[in-house]
Amino acid sequence: MTAVNRQILLVSRPQGEASVDNFRLVETPLAPLADGEVRVRNHFLSLDPYMRGRMSDAKSYADPQPLNEVMIGATVGEVVESRNPKFAAGDKVLGMFGWQEYGTSNGKGLQKVDASRVPLSAYLGVVGMPGVTAWTGLNRIIQPKAGQTIVVSSASGPVGTVVGQLAKRAGCRAVGIAGGPDKCRYVVDTLGFDACVDYKAGRLYEDLKAATPDGVDGCFENVGGAVLDATMARMNAFGRIALCGMIAAYDGAPTPMTHPALILRSRLMIQGFIVSEFPDAWPPALKELSELVATQQLHYRETVANGLENAPDAFLGMLKGRNFGKQIVQLV
Amino acid sequence: MTAVNRQILLVSRPQGEASVDNFRLVETPLAPLADGEVRVRNHFLSLDPYMRGRMSDAKSYADPQPLNEVMIGATVGEVVESRNPKFAAGDKVLGMFGWQEYGTSNGKGLQKVDASRVPLSAYLGVVGMPGVTAWTGLNRIIQPKAGQTIVVSSASGPVGTVVGQLAKRAGCRAVGIAGGPDKCRYVVDTLGFDACVDYKAGRLYEDLKAATPDGVDGCFENVGGAVLDATMARMNAFGRIALCGMIAAYDGAPTPMTHPALILRSRLMIQGFIVSEFPDAWPPALKELSELVATQQLHYRETVANGLENAPDAFLGMLKGRNFGKQIVQLV
Repeated sequence: MTAVNRQILLVSRPQGEASVDNFRLVETPLAPLADGEVRVRNHFLSLDPYMRGRMSDAKSYADPQPLNEVMIGATVGEVVESRNPKFAAGDKVLGMFGWQEYGTSNGKGLQKVDASRVPLSAYLGVVGMPGVTAWTGLNRIIQPKAGQTIVVSSASGPVGTVVGQLAKRAGCRAVGIAGGPDKCRYVVDTLGFDACVDYKAGRLYEDLKAATPDGVDGCFENVGGAVLDATMARMNAFGRIALCGMIAAYDGAPTPMTHPALILRSRLMIQGFIVSEFPDAWPPALKELSELVATQQLHYRETVANGLENAPDAFLGMLKGRNFGKQIVQLV
Repeated sequence: MTAVNRQILLVSRPQGEASVDNFRLVETPLAPLADGEVRVRNHFLSLDPYMRGRMSDAKSYADPQPLNEVMIGATVGEVVESRNPKFAAGDKVLGMFGWQEYGTSNGKGLQKVDASRVPLSAYLGVVGMPGVTAWTGLNRIIQPKAGQTIVVSSASGPVGTVVGQLAKRAGCRAVGIAGGPDKCRYVVDTLGFDACVDYKAGRLYEDLKAATPDGVDGCFENVGGAVLDATMARMNAFGRIALCGMIAAYDGAPTPMTHPALILRSRLMIQGFIVSEFPDAWPPALKELSELVATQQLHYRETVANGLENAPDAFLGMLKGRNFGKQIVQLV
């Protein structure tokens, strides 16, 4: 067994756009386990937009990622050695070990998962934080009713794919916004959305209008900026917006909301949320999502980068929308 | 008894800023009452910011005011003649007769009021639509808890005065935003707010920060634009914003929200609302407000213009914040 762990550290904070120079790959010896500890070989690392926020030290809902420490992140893997009675070698576990090949833990926060019905990597996506984010924003904030029109941006992403498919199951018209014809085709043909608007085609508002003939009742917003502006302009009275991400603003340029008077004119409700603050949503969400995945009623897609050394590139590509589906890094 | 009614019509729509040229005073003969009708001599006319929205034909939550018809508006007055068994001469009534000296109605929408404990004009303000707006936005949307800090803009106006006084009664720190030292002094010294920021002093954010040492938990927004931007930047996690007016945007220039990413960062909830859409809030609100006024526990202030012919000037002045308290026009 190797005595060396490879890790990626955050070594500087971005000024404007994030770059590979903000990260450094290091090799660190693995110390022998102490009593009560468990060691995990991480199989997959999750890359998520929230990590961009943690790279900055601007005031946020979470503390910034400390410099010269392993980048934060969710991981799934297999226990390879255990001195903790709750875990045994071979157990599949979900943890927050970050950007590294091995994780060592006293067991706290480590969660055994069943990889027999649901693929291990899905616990980072559709049956993990992104899936529960989709479930929570839709069911707890938007609260869709059959017949309504629900718009979701980043529709081909790990959150958006789940939002739209759950909206369809709730009897709604699901309209996605995504970048490029391939993603839009996937959203409609594979995921079963009623329509998908390609924001890169340059006719965002006109195309969204055509795709939402009855207006928009609910919006699950992952992007912000011009995408949110366009959706707000299509919203019906009493429309509800779950604001989950503003990836458009992560690289520092503030993106204003052009017509906030629409909030009043259409009596909109907008709520920003972080899924970790809805602890009671996780059990019902995970139950429903894992059942849907196990019975092949919920589609999802992954973009897999291979090898820890490629995590920074994959992360930066994801921020620019170059991934297609949930971005993960395979570590074994 | 006069056979002539004086009325003010909307004769053109504003291009940008509203002006007196948009209105015209006319004299119209009063027809004899038909069976079932009632005639009211209006004593007071209410002038409210929402009227500016009705002057435009842009899409809104309400139909525009038709051209060449009497301007919309709430009125209180006295029945002078009745051929309707439900009303008798001498009854004091609240109606929507608009900008005219006499109103004629079949009785529908006309509401008798008790002017013995509460002054008649108060039914246009603190015990009327503005007061119920304050009560509803505070209790139904902001839902204040003792110890929280509540900020209200247009704090010396008919809505803001009630918001702050009710927030104090709920055990909150009430902070107003108003224009000029006189209004700010009134808000603190007479109304009992804990602090009031003068937005005309040019240090809006700094002064608001000093006035809200523990941040802001609830915001009752009547203005929008820079005032809303500053308050959002002071809001604590899970802060709630009741968006009631965007007077800053009424004259056509769109005022963007500068940092919508704050909605996500601070997990804010923003809800636009129109008090007429909360019918179940009116009875408890009117009961509480009239009791507080009758027992002198709720302060309010009126700016009274005299004579129908001065209504347009008074209205335009109100849009610019030249009134001090509820703007009404005395018609008798």
